[in-house]
Amino acid sequence: NSNLRLFSLKANEPLAEEIADHIGIPLGKCQVNRFSDEEVQINIEESVRGCDVFVVQSTSQPVNEHLMELLIMIDALKRASAATINIVMPYYGYARQDRKSRSREPITAKLVANLIETAGADRVISLDLHAPQLQGFFDIPIDHLMGVPILSDYFMENKDLDFDEVVVVSPDHGGVTRARKMADRLKTPIAIIDKRRPKPNVAEVMNIVGEIEGRTAIIIDDIIDTGGTMKLAAQALLDKGAKEVYACCTHPVLSGPAISRIEESVIKELVVTNSIQLPQDKKSEKITELSVGELMAQAIVRVYEEESVSILFDN
Amino acid sequence: NSNLRLFSLKANEPLAEEIADHIGIPLGKCQVNRFSDEEVQINIEESVRGCDVFVVQSTSQPVNEHLMELLIMIDALKRASAATINIVMPYYGYARQDRKSRSREPITAKLVANLIETAGADRVISLDLHAPQLQGFFDIPIDHLMGVPILSDYFMENKDLDFDEVVVVSPDHGGVTRARKMADRLKTPIAIIDKRRPKPNVAEVMNIVGEIEGRTAIIIDDIIDTGGTMKLAAQALLDKGAKEVYACCTHPVLSGPAISRIEESVIKELVVTNSIQLPQDKKSEKITELSVGELMAQAIVRVYEEESVSILFDN
Ligand SMILES: Nc1ncnc2c1ncn2[C@@H]1O[C@H](COP(=O)(O)O)[C@@H](O)[C@H]1O
Ligand SMILES: Nc1ncnc2c1ncn2[C@@H]1O[C@H](COP(=O)(O)O)[C@@H](O)[C@H]1O
Repeated sequence: NSNLRLFSLKANEPLAEEIADHIGIPLGKCQVNRFSDEEVQINIEESVRGCDVFVVQSTSQPVNEHLMELLIMIDALKRASAATINIVMPYYGYARQDRKSRSREPITAKLVANLIETAGADRVISLDLHAPQLQGFFDIPIDHLMGVPILSDYFMENKDLDFDEVVVVSPDHGGVTRARKMADRLKTPIAIIDKRRPKPNVAEVMNIVGEIEGRTAIIIDDIIDTGGTMKLAAQALLDKGAKEVYACCTHPVLSGPAISRIEESVIKELVVTNSIQLPQDKKSEKITELSVGELMAQAIVRVYEEESVSILFDN
Repeated sequence: NSNLRLFSLKANEPLAEEIADHIGIPLGKCQVNRFSDEEVQINIEESVRGCDVFVVQSTSQPVNEHLMELLIMIDALKRASAATINIVMPYYGYARQDRKSRSREPITAKLVANLIETAGADRVISLDLHAPQLQGFFDIPIDHLMGVPILSDYFMENKDLDFDEVVVVSPDHGGVTRARKMADRLKTPIAIIDKRRPKPNVAEVMNIVGEIEGRTAIIIDDIIDTGGTMKLAAQALLDKGAKEVYACCTHPVLSGPAISRIEESVIKELVVTNSIQLPQDKKSEKITELSVGELMAQAIVRVYEEESVSILFDN
């Protein structure tokens, strides 16, 4: 493992520590500070010459700070002659701005991919991109990991549920594939929440496609942001006869009123991963955090071995 | 002027308004907001197809927010088929990180140039770059304007000074060329503050090279950041016999303790430009703000006419 270096930036240091523990190496020494005018100051404090370097950074809130830290770190590593620069980005910020839904909108998810490549990254490891098409935004290799197994295992191993009486629910049409994957693992049927606005300026109707009567519903999404959809979806499920409602997601963005909405909601428990570090004021009795540390560590070791092999072949 | 469009982002809207007034066109309509999770949301609200677009944005504090706004705006303009995208960036953030002064440091000023080009900018108009070498960081044309004439004119036209008794002072070796330019306009000699640390861990000595006895000193710098150097330099000048001390700079970064240092200092008046918008808590009786609006407007018109001409030749 002598050529593998793992660095953490500021977005999620506890996750980086976990990853380092799983791999069995210490985190690289590196100062990430701010000058008096808030410009990012980075000092890498050990040699990375000829090393395969992995940098752990989710571009979570504050996204622009975390993204610039990452780009500047990549620049520093490149100039310090790292052999390869691999970005471990469990949460990919700006992923939702992935198409023009109106004229003259940016496609920031593509811009961010270009910026990461321009800075000098060789590879990206990410988790549950908002749309799998984001992989095509990169010209460098991207490893796309899935949160569904971790979330599913939690329900199978820690909840005393009768899975004959469970239904996995997608909160919208975009998430059906993800719900299907979870349902396959839990061996349950799926349901879909089919939001419709009957007329302009009339409140949305939450129609439910699928059998939920008397069942335990587990809603799954990739991101929970302000929690509005999740709160309404849970209520609709209960109103239409579900026995109880759990929710889970990979990326707990939880911005604005999210925490109070989750706490007020009929959701029994919200299960999330630590792809985004939850600050103290976003912790809640209702929220269970699962770790993606081992998953990320495995991906890093796999990529590292592949890169070592390709170096062997290149010589 | 029918093909020229001017947009402002959030860093300095009053300056953009002034520029628009000088050119005699309205500012383009564009919403620059934040989503609930602080991601930048931009909507350009008028067609820019085939237009020569100029975007006013200084990458002042908070630099990472302002830079990302700019990159996302460029992306949106590019996808909206602007003919050319020209960045009017009076203050270029990260300019001081322009070389590796230690091993494994980034060169963020170069990274930023690459990011702006990658996003899709065709040209940059900037003012008093920390080092003129930054022009070479760009592969696209860059127009480099000077603040010295505006600062010099202020002293000549508004201060009742006897210029036979004035000396222009550079606060360090790096700024001598700038001081020389100002002294040429004011027809005065120059002096240089020659900081030296006699031994490690011994306080710096402020030695002054040049005649200052009985003279009015005008210190000129490109950036005043925390104000530490400026405060000490002014005191040293007075201690060594200067009659009074003015200070001026193009870019009032004024971070951290700057305002209180300036107010406590022996500086009579600090003259700055509006390349960076001063928030209310950075305004001070001692600080005079001069406008670069007309200078920027002239540069825009010049570039626009050149681009229109090149379009004529291309056809
Ligand atoms: N950070 C954000 N917060 C809320 N909405 C966003 C954000 N970024 C992009 N969007 C919008 O979300 C929509 C895409 O979400 P979706 O339909 O779930 O793929 C687009 O219309 C975007 O304008
Ligand atoms: N935002 C900043 N605030 C303070 N110092 C900086 C900043 N950015 C870069 N520097 C440092 O300033 C030095 C360059 O300044 P100068 O010698 O005046 O060109 C370098 O050693 C940088 O590490």
